[in-house]
Amino acid sequence: MLKVYLAGPEVFLPEAIELGARKKRLCSEYGFEGLYPFDNEISPTSEERIDRRIYRANEQMIRRADFGICNLTPFRGVSADPGTVLELGMMAGLGKRVFAYTNTVRNYLERSKLHDTLTYESSGNVWLDADGMAVEDFGNVDNLMIDWAVAEHGACPIVRHDAHPAEIYRDLTGFETCLRLAAEAISKIA
Amino acid sequence: MLKVYLAGPEVFLPEAIELGARKKRLCSEYGFEGLYPFDNEISPTSEERIDRRIYRANEQMIRRADFGICNLTPFRGVSADPGTVLELGMMAGLGKRVFAYTNTVRNYLERSKLHDTLTYESSGNVWLDADGMAVEDFGNVDNLMIDWAVAEHGACPIVRHDAHPAEIYRDLTGFETCLRLAAEAISKIA
Repeated sequence: MLKVYLAGPEVFLPEAIELGARKKRLCSEYGFEGLYPFDNEISPTSEERIDRRIYRANEQMIRRADFGICNLTPFRGVSADPGTVLELGMMAGLGKRVFAYTNTVRNYLERSKLHDTLTYESSGNVWLDADGMAVEDFGNVDNLMIDWAVAEHGACPIVRHDAHPAEIYRDLTGFETCLRLAAEAISKIA
Repeated sequence: MLKVYLAGPEVFLPEAIELGARKKRLCSEYGFEGLYPFDNEISPTSEERIDRRIYRANEQMIRRADFGICNLTPFRGVSADPGTVLELGMMAGLGKRVFAYTNTVRNYLERSKLHDTLTYESSGNVWLDADGMAVEDFGNVDNLMIDWAVAEHGACPIVRHDAHPAEIYRDLTGFETCLRLAAEAISKIA
């Protein structure tokens, strides 16, 4: 059974463990074994720093996984959770296939306009943020390195789903679409 | 001569090219060849999407590099530029050594308190953001996956430098410290 690493900011929710269990049940419905960061048993008695042990356990899980599904929903700002982005990059570097979803349909430029006061510089045909720094305008979900890491290493663009704001970190519609895409991709290879 | 990939949000500055040239000159003073994303010649005449070509050129540069130096200064929110974080993860996944710096000495929890209204939940001994999601309190620069990817794959913690706010994306003090750490690390191996 192929193993899928489940990356996303839902690990910071109060109900992180239940949500992980829901994700893992969905994985098994599609014939995969879900690996969720909270499955790591980190005992608080060890002398080593707990954050270092969490890191090592997550990296080991990523290395054990056959592929990944990343939740790239914006988190504490205009972009995705940086822990999830780090894991996405690591999986791409390790040559593992990555699928991803976001629970908003607004693209990066649209979200940047809500988050900051942008100005349009017609001479350079570019949007600038309040610091005078260019804002990417490619219609992508996030920084181009993120969108294209998924497209090149997963062979599918990031799935965009318009979740209810109250459910933005809990809605699993886009996640299930990724599972379906992964199952289809595997059946094509087999 | 060892090649170092130069990741950071300074690519979005109006003077991105000059800043890259400054970084590359510093690299050569330490005996390294700097690879800067803007060195890629992306001609706008090709039929392929420009963002995809930038991605591919950057990934090729990362694969050619012997190690990386990442600018993890907070960008458009509490965390580092997600493009830089993606590249950091990719280098770690590829087994390349990574060094990193940030131009603020405030840690993740301190910055989160400035960015959002946090509440302390004494029963769980945890800080929560306005969405009720846990905020990491390990004294780290950013999400633990970022700090420990650097510490484990670079063997040095993220360098913290207190830059003047107006120079936060231009100050190269922390960058030069990373070059010195890299030169020392290489001399130990050689």
